[in-house]
Amino acid sequence: FRAGKTNLRMAPTFRPDPAHNALGDPQAWNTWVGRLEDATDLRVDSLDTLIGALAKARLEFAVAGAKASDHGLARLPDCDPDDRLAAAAVKKALKGEVPTQAERDALTLEVLRATAKWNHAEGWTTQLHLNPLRNVSSRLLLSVGADAGTDVMGDERQASGLARFLNGLDEEGHLPQTILYNLNPADNHVFAVLAGAFQGTGANPGHVQWGSAWWFLDQEDGMRRQINDLSNLGQLSAFIGMLTDSRSPLSFVRHEMFRRILCDLIGRDAESGRIPCDRGMLADLVSRVCYGNARDYFGFGIHPDFERAAS
Amino acid sequence: FRAGKTNLRMAPTFRPDPAHNALGDPQAWNTWVGRLEDATDLRVDSLDTLIGALAKARLEFAVAGAKASDHGLARLPDCDPDDRLAAAAVKKALKGEVPTQAERDALTLEVLRATAKWNHAEGWTTQLHLNPLRNVSSRLLLSVGADAGTDVMGDERQASGLARFLNGLDEEGHLPQTILYNLNPADNHVFAVLAGAFQGTGANPGHVQWGSAWWFLDQEDGMRRQINDLSNLGQLSAFIGMLTDSRSPLSFVRHEMFRRILCDLIGRDAESGRIPCDRGMLADLVSRVCYGNARDYFGFGIHPDFERAAS
Amino acid sequence: FRAGKTNLRMAPTFRPDPAHNALGDPQAWNTWVGRLEDATDLRVDSLDTLIGALAKARLEFAVAGAKASDHGLARLPDCDPDDRLAAAAVKKALKGEVPTQAERDALTLEVLRATAKWNHAEGWTTQLHLNPLRNVSSRLLLSVGADAGTDVMGDERQASGLARFLNGLDEEGHLPQTILYNLNPADNHVFAVLAGAFQGTGANPGHVQWGSAWWFLDQEDGMRRQINDLSNLGQLSAFIGMLTDSRSPLSFVRHEMFRRILCDLIGRDAESGRIPCDRGMLADLVSRVCYGNARDYFGFGIHPDFERAAS
Repeated sequence: FRAGKTNLRMAPTFRPDPAHNALGDPQAWNTWVGRLEDATDLRVDSLDTLIGALAKARLEFAVAGAKASDHGLARLPDCDPDDRLAAAAVKKALKGEVPTQAERDALTLEVLRATAKWNHAEGWTTQLHLNPLRNVSSRLLLSVGADAGTDVMGDERQASGLARFLNGLDEEGHLPQTILYNLNPADNHVFAVLAGAFQGTGANPGHVQWGSAWWFLDQEDGMRRQINDLSNLGQLSAFIGMLTDSRSPLSFVRHEMFRRILCDLIGRDAESGRIPCDRGMLADLVSRVCYGNARDYFGFGIHPDFERAAS
Repeated sequence: FRAGKTNLRMAPTFRPDPAHNALGDPQAWNTWVGRLEDATDLRVDSLDTLIGALAKARLEFAVAGAKASDHGLARLPDCDPDDRLAAAAVKKALKGEVPTQAERDALTLEVLRATAKWNHAEGWTTQLHLNPLRNVSSRLLLSVGADAGTDVMGDERQASGLARFLNGLDEEGHLPQTILYNLNPADNHVFAVLAGAFQGTGANPGHVQWGSAWWFLDQEDGMRRQINDLSNLGQLSAFIGMLTDSRSPLSFVRHEMFRRILCDLIGRDAESGRIPCDRGMLADLVSRVCYGNARDYFGFGIHPDFERAAS
Repeated sequence: FRAGKTNLRMAPTFRPDPAHNALGDPQAWNTWVGRLEDATDLRVDSLDTLIGALAKARLEFAVAGAKASDHGLARLPDCDPDDRLAAAAVKKALKGEVPTQAERDALTLEVLRATAKWNHAEGWTTQLHLNPLRNVSSRLLLSVGADAGTDVMGDERQASGLARFLNGLDEEGHLPQTILYNLNPADNHVFAVLAGAFQGTGANPGHVQWGSAWWFLDQEDGMRRQINDLSNLGQLSAFIGMLTDSRSPLSFVRHEMFRRILCDLIGRDAESGRIPCDRGMLADLVSRVCYGNARDYFGFGIHPDFERAAS
């Protein structure tokens, strides 16, 4: 939406997660598929029609200004794509059966890969949010519902499956701009380094990049670690900075907190002689991480208020 | 025991670990079961009689003042309870055979779940010490014996199995007060967050909570990280603080070290403006973490010397 | 080689990695085996002849001044040695087939164990570099080749397989001096602690020891963490310090950076009262970590220039 005086524009992201995350509970999955059918006026009776309905739903998000898809899952399955297995997952789930783990993994890859290809074709960004462990308390889930405090931080191994996923798309020439978010800070270094192996395909530096501290890590210590680890292992100057995946306007203050922490870290490094104390260079770095990189990465275009502030 | 002048009371904890940890060495397991039979005057010839003997042994600990059980294991098996498999483990081990991994995991869950239910019924606390890797040096094990320097830190995945264990007990209404200790600091964040999903069942805040830095981590850096990570991701004010699971009076000094580190961290946060510099509020926080929370959590009752010091 | 005026001596290390790492690509493996045959004038047609050719190749490195072997792999396979499976791996690879994972793991263990035994017999050191994830970008691999930026940091579990490997050699009386390098800093604590369980077999303290910050971690933050974690969990005074496994003379400056960071950390600890501010003791510690320990550990003998500087 647009808030008149401030020129604030808030864009939705396309989140097809339930298409694969809900497979453990076929009733929930079918309910969600029913809503997808209603929203798209399409019938879902196979893998192909499921993907087709997702494609049509995604167009609605494009109309609403979306520039990114968002995917939250424990890990990227560490296996090759297999549309036969994915089709079996859809068939079983439609009949109310729980597919095998291999079938579920195959459908996860099918949905993610289809979305990534659409994103690549249209200059959208794919956001991968990895390592939540969902609905751990059945009691809390019953009393307050999903996404309300019964999700925690997992410790699934990420590196191999994630590298395989990105490489598969890269080999086919379909790797979109991708941002990798880790929920477990033990994965910080793996994510920072992995992004570095998939550069040079897109127009923007940081085509694949490690995203800002997320969820449980969205606090001072988590932000400091993320910025420091990125600075040590990746390219801070290509970082698009803090991102709000929140639906709560009150959470926007995290952007201000991020900017202050970033400036504090850069200032300390300059004072201690670790980086040159060159005001112009450092101001440019801060301005890029806080505004310019995101503007260019998402193709948001010039925003007069911010351009003035940044110059 | 009680040391007269100081009113020091040292309580034992119930540790049934060998009932499942020794299954890899049936001879050692049978020796231990023989001692359990002697101590309880009961015959162990099945899963049920093993659990019965453990229940009777536990009563002796209750008489000696125990308020907690203690369990040290690599990880909580990430599977559902299965008393048929657990019974098979006991049967094989009694015959001197090594049970399968699935059978061993089932017996581990059976012993832990039985103890947790007893603890819940009587207001005891369950302590889970996770991720040791035992007896890695056969040479050292032969020369100096078990528990004498040949155990190290493991890197088993903890989140999913631990969440499943806690949730299973919670669903059945049997989740006791539980303290989670991690040996590998890479698990700090997972443990801090996981505890938060199992609140609201008991009388005390921090019904399930993340325990203090343990074993290899029981040094300044380990303690600082634990307190900081807990403060970032959990509820510091509900923390029962340092716990001595040691049999050595010389190790008690770690309590003084813990209190000084805690005060140093809180003082720094107050000085930098991260928390209000409110002497009354901060004194109350320190007093609770260092004394009051443990008193209430374990139901130790009022101790006149400490009450004076705390006020 | 020797650089005249500076008395600089640069020693090679024996790196037999392709014998097992290349098994996923039998053509590459056979090319490498062909080069091994040419270099050794031996024919490789079985496990035994492969090991024999490696033994002969290793002698060439001994002549060139090598005192260490170097092994880079994702993880030590967590299984017992099996020469039958290893022989099957060689047989399949020679025929151009990809061996099974179990066969590949068996050959990995066979090559590593043979090298370790040779090293033990001759006072060499075994260096294990663990947790790289190789060639993740097929596009980059095609355009710039292997070992040129398409390797990242993995998150394989290390503790159990590594402990089993070291213990197997120790039980047989063949455990050589061994240095453990981790690529993922989430493994720091596991590596620091594990080394401590395998002391007391060799002449030098730190017979098995945790090595300096490596590759991606070879920067200020990585070095500080490694030194601090070692100081917390191991024995800093037995540490042989920074090691250059690089072929680039420009990388030697990392030794100077390491020394400065070490002195900064020790100085801060002395200033804050954490260690005694005893100039003689601290100078001895610094001198040993920066020079004396490596001299004695590798048996390099006295170097007149450095001895003067160190005294």
